[in-house]
Amino acid sequence: MKNLAFSKSLPQFKNSDDCVVIYDKVLPKVSKSFAKWLKGFEKTYAVVAGEELKDIPQFPAHIQKITKICENTSVSKMQIIVVGGGSVGDFGGFVASILKRGVALIHIPSTWLAAIDSAHGGKTALNVGEAKNQIGTFYPAQKIHIVEELLRAQPEARAFDGFGELMKIALLEGGSLWKKLSKEKNVDSQLLWKYLKPAIQAKYAIVNKDPLEKKGIRHLLNLGHTVGHVLEKIYALPHGVAINYGIDFSLRWSLEKKLLSQKEYDSLMQSPVMVYLLSPLRDDLFKTSESFLKKVRQGLLNDKKKDSQSTVRFIFLKKPGHCVPLSVSVDDILIEICRQIEEEKLG
Amino acid sequence: MKNLAFSKSLPQFKNSDDCVVIYDKVLPKVSKSFAKWLKGFEKTYAVVAGEELKDIPQFPAHIQKITKICENTSVSKMQIIVVGGGSVGDFGGFVASILKRGVALIHIPSTWLAAIDSAHGGKTALNVGEAKNQIGTFYPAQKIHIVEELLRAQPEARAFDGFGELMKIALLEGGSLWKKLSKEKNVDSQLLWKYLKPAIQAKYAIVNKDPLEKKGIRHLLNLGHTVGHVLEKIYALPHGVAINYGIDFSLRWSLEKKLLSQKEYDSLMQSPVMVYLLSPLRDDLFKTSESFLKKVRQGLLNDKKKDSQSTVRFIFLKKPGHCVPLSVSVDDILIEICRQIEEEKLG
Repeated sequence: MKNLAFSKSLPQFKNSDDCVVIYDKVLPKVSKSFAKWLKGFEKTYAVVAGEELKDIPQFPAHIQKITKICENTSVSKMQIIVVGGGSVGDFGGFVASILKRGVALIHIPSTWLAAIDSAHGGKTALNVGEAKNQIGTFYPAQKIHIVEELLRAQPEARAFDGFGELMKIALLEGGSLWKKLSKEKNVDSQLLWKYLKPAIQAKYAIVNKDPLEKKGIRHLLNLGHTVGHVLEKIYALPHGVAINYGIDFSLRWSLEKKLLSQKEYDSLMQSPVMVYLLSPLRDDLFKTSESFLKKVRQGLLNDKKKDSQSTVRFIFLKKPGHCVPLSVSVDDILIEICRQIEEEKLG
Repeated sequence: MKNLAFSKSLPQFKNSDDCVVIYDKVLPKVSKSFAKWLKGFEKTYAVVAGEELKDIPQFPAHIQKITKICENTSVSKMQIIVVGGGSVGDFGGFVASILKRGVALIHIPSTWLAAIDSAHGGKTALNVGEAKNQIGTFYPAQKIHIVEELLRAQPEARAFDGFGELMKIALLEGGSLWKKLSKEKNVDSQLLWKYLKPAIQAKYAIVNKDPLEKKGIRHLLNLGHTVGHVLEKIYALPHGVAINYGIDFSLRWSLEKKLLSQKEYDSLMQSPVMVYLLSPLRDDLFKTSESFLKKVRQGLLNDKKKDSQSTVRFIFLKKPGHCVPLSVSVDDILIEICRQIEEEKLG
């Protein structure tokens, strides 16, 4: 956690000549203090946030412009400061990791989702065709600044997006973080700020055991992501929202497989944070139509975490703090989707 | 050197289903045994060797096709086997380093230049605009196979291209490698094969002290490259040939600066290998015309190894085994080019 700093306002950089700021172009409009801070830098590059930013066909134009901006900057002193949410962080981190074979990277996440999850752990990514994060690097930031005024500048509605990953990390941790969070009654952005530090600590506890995702440990962070990513793609959902549904899908399947007991499941579902997250009707998303199932199949086949031609490692929950990855086939997932739809109809 | 294997013929892979072979499309034509070996793989991707392969605008199309080829391959088992010279190695290594955030990489260099130098040390690269190797990664190959039959399939004339880097590494080593090489009389591809192993060992001795090029040690490998790269770009010279001239430029400048003694310089220039390398007339390359000097200036400003806005770290030679990096300005280099042209005219 040495690379992590919490502060009220945006940090100052003495060597601003050596800095290149890659930022979400919406930020100067939503945060006056960001607009003022940005004026302290000469070398800046504004991007439009969103998955399109990570599309590989646009990458050459971006890297040509960024190379031009930093052509008079010393490689050894250069720092790329990335200010934005998940997509901007994935993109900017990737740029820093390959520019001159790697220059110093500083993350200043501007969304709850990025502050809790994507700014940490060193994953950078671009998308190739329909499939997310097909290329990228492991490139941990030298420093990550969690800045309260920047996060608070987001609309309150974005908190919903942040809770998905908070919930996931709390379920994986299963100890004091989960116990406290599951008892919280007022679910809002105040709560996200309160849990930011322990949630980040819990993520590092996992990442540090398996930084390059070689041992299977880090793969646990994929809880809720197998089906979540597919829904995100099909419906262009915010990542955190899609992960909420992915976690819900995983918990129901874990119950069906008797990995999770009915008692444990009921207790999970009664926690206010879970009630809040799953309140929108989920059965609008899952469909038994051939076209929907075909899209899901294709999405699953594009999954980077594939075991083999047609199986994926799916993360099930036995109880908070105890997840198990099991190899399941794409067909198994499609069948379970149909079963859950039927169950909803009956229930 | 654990990752290094020398063999007569191309190595066999049991798990060919997990392998994706990226290869120089000329190879099946020049080597029958390569053509036969290639038939053992289903997943193959042919590329046209040369610096254009490394141009960033073409990269999205390449990575889309390669992603498609390996879509049914398990990430944890996948191996990218790269067979080719420097450009194919830089490209294929970069692909392996970012595909699914890094898959296993195996190099089988097919040129002397790649076998001596570029396949080792983990540097991968693409070009952005006019400047070489602006983006890339440090990503050492899991295994490097040096295959005699493949290297021998090259035309004898390519040996000239290989000697530049052999000379460079021998000058940097300065011990038994240099002493033996400088006494050799018959300079041909037989000699390259004989010196391959000690030359590679000498390179690893430097790289292993500074794998990420952070300590300045690895930078010594840039001997002859500052001006060499510029000539390579301006005249589209083979890399090794350009490096020969770059080394020659550095030695003359080292003499002028009295870093290198006249006695040492004369002794260097009398070695048969140096006579062989520098036999083509160099004064056809350097010009005092404004347009030439402008191109050199731009090339130097694009140099990735820049210290600051207008200085580069240039490698001088005090004596074999003792190089010194000094910060010089772009103007210093232009003035030295003009001085060397004058000297040629007088001498």
